[in-house]
Amino acid sequence: MGGIHPTAVVSSRAQVADSASVGPFTIINDDVVVGEGAEVGSHCELGVATSLAKQPRLVIGPGSLVRSHSRIYQGSDFGGGLTTGHAVTIRENVVAGARLQLGSQSILDGDCVLGDHVRIHTNVFVTKNSVVGSFVWIFSSVLLTDDPHPPSHLRLGVTIHDFAVLAAGCAVLPGVVLGRGCLVGCRALVTKDVPEGMVAVGAPAELRGPVSALPRRDGSGEPAYPWTAHYHRGYPEEVVRDWVAAAGRDCP
Amino acid sequence: MGGIHPTAVVSSRAQVADSASVGPFTIINDDVVVGEGAEVGSHCELGVATSLAKQPRLVIGPGSLVRSHSRIYQGSDFGGGLTTGHAVTIRENVVAGARLQLGSQSILDGDCVLGDHVRIHTNVFVTKNSVVGSFVWIFSSVLLTDDPHPPSHLRLGVTIHDFAVLAAGCAVLPGVVLGRGCLVGCRALVTKDVPEGMVAVGAPAELRGPVSALPRRDGSGEPAYPWTAHYHRGYPEEVVRDWVAAAGRDCP
Amino acid sequence: MGGIHPTAVVSSRAQVADSASVGPFTIINDDVVVGEGAEVGSHCELGVATSLAKQPRLVIGPGSLVRSHSRIYQGSDFGGGLTTGHAVTIRENVVAGARLQLGSQSILDGDCVLGDHVRIHTNVFVTKNSVVGSFVWIFSSVLLTDDPHPPSHLRLGVTIHDFAVLAAGCAVLPGVVLGRGCLVGCRALVTKDVPEGMVAVGAPAELRGPVSALPRRDGSGEPAYPWTAHYHRGYPEEVVRDWVAAAGRDCP
Repeated sequence: MGGIHPTAVVSSRAQVADSASVGPFTIINDDVVVGEGAEVGSHCELGVATSLAKQPRLVIGPGSLVRSHSRIYQGSDFGGGLTTGHAVTIRENVVAGARLQLGSQSILDGDCVLGDHVRIHTNVFVTKNSVVGSFVWIFSSVLLTDDPHPPSHLRLGVTIHDFAVLAAGCAVLPGVVLGRGCLVGCRALVTKDVPEGMVAVGAPAELRGPVSALPRRDGSGEPAYPWTAHYHRGYPEEVVRDWVAAAGRDCP
Repeated sequence: MGGIHPTAVVSSRAQVADSASVGPFTIINDDVVVGEGAEVGSHCELGVATSLAKQPRLVIGPGSLVRSHSRIYQGSDFGGGLTTGHAVTIRENVVAGARLQLGSQSILDGDCVLGDHVRIHTNVFVTKNSVVGSFVWIFSSVLLTDDPHPPSHLRLGVTIHDFAVLAAGCAVLPGVVLGRGCLVGCRALVTKDVPEGMVAVGAPAELRGPVSALPRRDGSGEPAYPWTAHYHRGYPEEVVRDWVAAAGRDCP
Repeated sequence: MGGIHPTAVVSSRAQVADSASVGPFTIINDDVVVGEGAEVGSHCELGVATSLAKQPRLVIGPGSLVRSHSRIYQGSDFGGGLTTGHAVTIRENVVAGARLQLGSQSILDGDCVLGDHVRIHTNVFVTKNSVVGSFVWIFSSVLLTDDPHPPSHLRLGVTIHDFAVLAAGCAVLPGVVLGRGCLVGCRALVTKDVPEGMVAVGAPAELRGPVSALPRRDGSGEPAYPWTAHYHRGYPEEVVRDWVAAAGRDCP
C-alpha cells in the first residue's frame, strides 16, 4: 500500500521506505529512517530536533505502527515492530529492542534502555535513566521516578528485570530494582527493591510472598504467575515453546 | 454558521450535516456521520479504521462538540450533545446515551456502554467492558481496570450504577460493582463492591457510612449527598423537577 | 530565524513578532500576541475562543517556547520565557509570571494565578482557582482539586506558597494551603494544611518534621532542603546569589 499523504511535510533528508505510509499533516524531519511497511499516522512529528540527542538519527524499524498525534525526537533507535498508541512522546537517546508496545499518551522521557517485547499501556511515564529488561509489562498510569529529593542533580533510575509486571497505577521511587518476574500490585508505591518472583502491594509497598501463590480467577485452580504459563498472545512461537516447557517453575 | 475548513480532509463517504462545522487539519474518514449543528475542532481524526469495530459507522450526534486533537474510532454511537475536551481517545464499539461529557485526554478504551448524562472529567481511563449507568460522575484521573491478574485473557469490567460519584484520582479493581448513588473518595482504591448510597474511602477502600451523613461545606447545614438535591447545572428541566421532589430521600 | 510555516493558519488580527516562529499546521487565532523570538511548534492552536475569557487577548511573551500539539485559550497572559512541553492545555484567565515551565500533557484549567519561575512537570492538573507562588516545583502527575463534595458549586482552590515542592503523584484536596518551602512526598494525599518548611508524606498525609532533616543522597552529608542551597539551574544570577547567602537557614 504505502504512500506519503500529500499534506505531509517530509524532509528530503529523511529516508522513508517505499512500502511505508505517512498520514495527513504529519512531519518527518531530517535524518529520520522509516522502515519497510511501517505506518505513521496523522498529525505526528518524527525527528523533533534537540541539542540533547547523542546522534541525529531516529530509526523507526520495519513493520512499525506509530499512531496519530505522536512526537518522537531524534536520537532514538527502535527495533522492528514498534507499535504506539496515540499521542506518545518519546524523547532522545532511547534504545529499544524488538516489538515495543507503548500505549496512548505514554512518555519515554529519554536516555533509557528497553529490551525486547516490552509492553507498556496508556498514560505511563518512564523517567530518564530507566533500564527495562525484556518481556516486561507496565500497565496504565504507572509512574517511574528518578530524583530522590527533588529538585536535585541526582538521577537514580529505576531498573526492571525481565518478565516483571507493574500493575496499573503503581509508582516506583528512584533507584529501586524490580526483580525478574516480580509483580507490583495496582496503585502500589514501591520504595524498596522487590526480589525476583515476589509480590509487592500497598503504599508503601510490602512483600506478600511469591507470585506463584496467586491463583487464577478463571476457575482453573492454576497459579496466575508466572504469566508466561498461560499468556502467549503476540509472542514469537519459539519463545512461547520455551515458556510452555518451563511451566510449573516459579519464573520463566 | 457551519462549514468545513478548506484544510480539512473529509471522505466523500462521510455524512457531514450542512449546519455542522469541521476545523482546520481535521480528518473525517469513511462512514462517519456528523449531525446537525455539531462542531468538530482542529487536528482531529474521526472514524479511525480498526478491524475490531463491529460495524463501520461512527455517529456523532446533533449538537455535539468535539474539541481539538481528538481521535474517535469507527464503530461507536453517541447520542446527541456529546461534548469532549481536547485530545480524547475513543475506541470502537462504545455506545453512549445523550449528552456525554468527556474531559481532555480521557480515554474510552472501547467495548463499553454508558447511559445518559454521564460526566467524565480529564485524564480518566475507562477500560474495555465497563458498564456505566446514567447521571454518573467520574472526576479527573480516575482509573478503571479489568484484568484481575495481568497479563491474562480474563476481562472483568467495572459496573457503575446511576448517580454514582467517583472522586478525583480513585482507582477501581476489575469486576467491582459501584452501587446507585454511592460515593468513592478522592484517591480511593476500590477492591470490593460499594453498596447503594454508601461512601467508600481509603486504599484499600473501606465503607464509611451513608452518603447522606456528609455535610455540605457551604454553611447550609444540609447534607452534600444525594448531589441531585442541590446540583442541577445543565440537566433537563423535567429531570431536575423529579430530583427536587425527591430531595430529603437518600438517593434520587 | 523566525518565520511562519506556509501551512500555518494565522489570523490577520494576531500579532506575531517578526523574530518569532510558527510551526506547520498550527493555528493562531484573533487577538493572540506572540512576542520577540518566541517559538510555537507544530499542530498547536493558540487563542482558542471561549465565552469564559475575561478579555480576548492571549499573550505569549518574548523568548517563549510552546511545543507541538498544545492548545492555549484566549484570555491568559504569560510573562516572558514561557516553556511548555507537548500537548499542554491552558484554559482562560491564567496569569503567570516570568519563565513558567509546564510539562507535556499538563493542564492549567483556568482562572488561576502563578508567580515567577514556577516549574511544573508532565501530566499535572492545576484546577481552577489555584494560587501558586514563585519558585514552586510541581512534579509529574500531581493533581490539585477544588470541589469539596463533588459535584457542587463550591470552589475551594489550593494555595501553594513560594519555594514549596510537590513531589510526583501527590494529590491535594480542596482549600488546602501549602506553606512556604514545604515538601509534599511522592503520592501523598494532602487533606490538611502543611506549615512552612515542613514535610508531609502518606495518604492521608501526615507531618514528618522539618524539611531540613532530610539528608542529601549525594554523600555530602548536607541537608537536601531547602533545595535552593544546592539547585540553581536556570535561575537568574541575582536570585541565586541571595539563595547562596541564605544557605544554612531553613527556608530561603
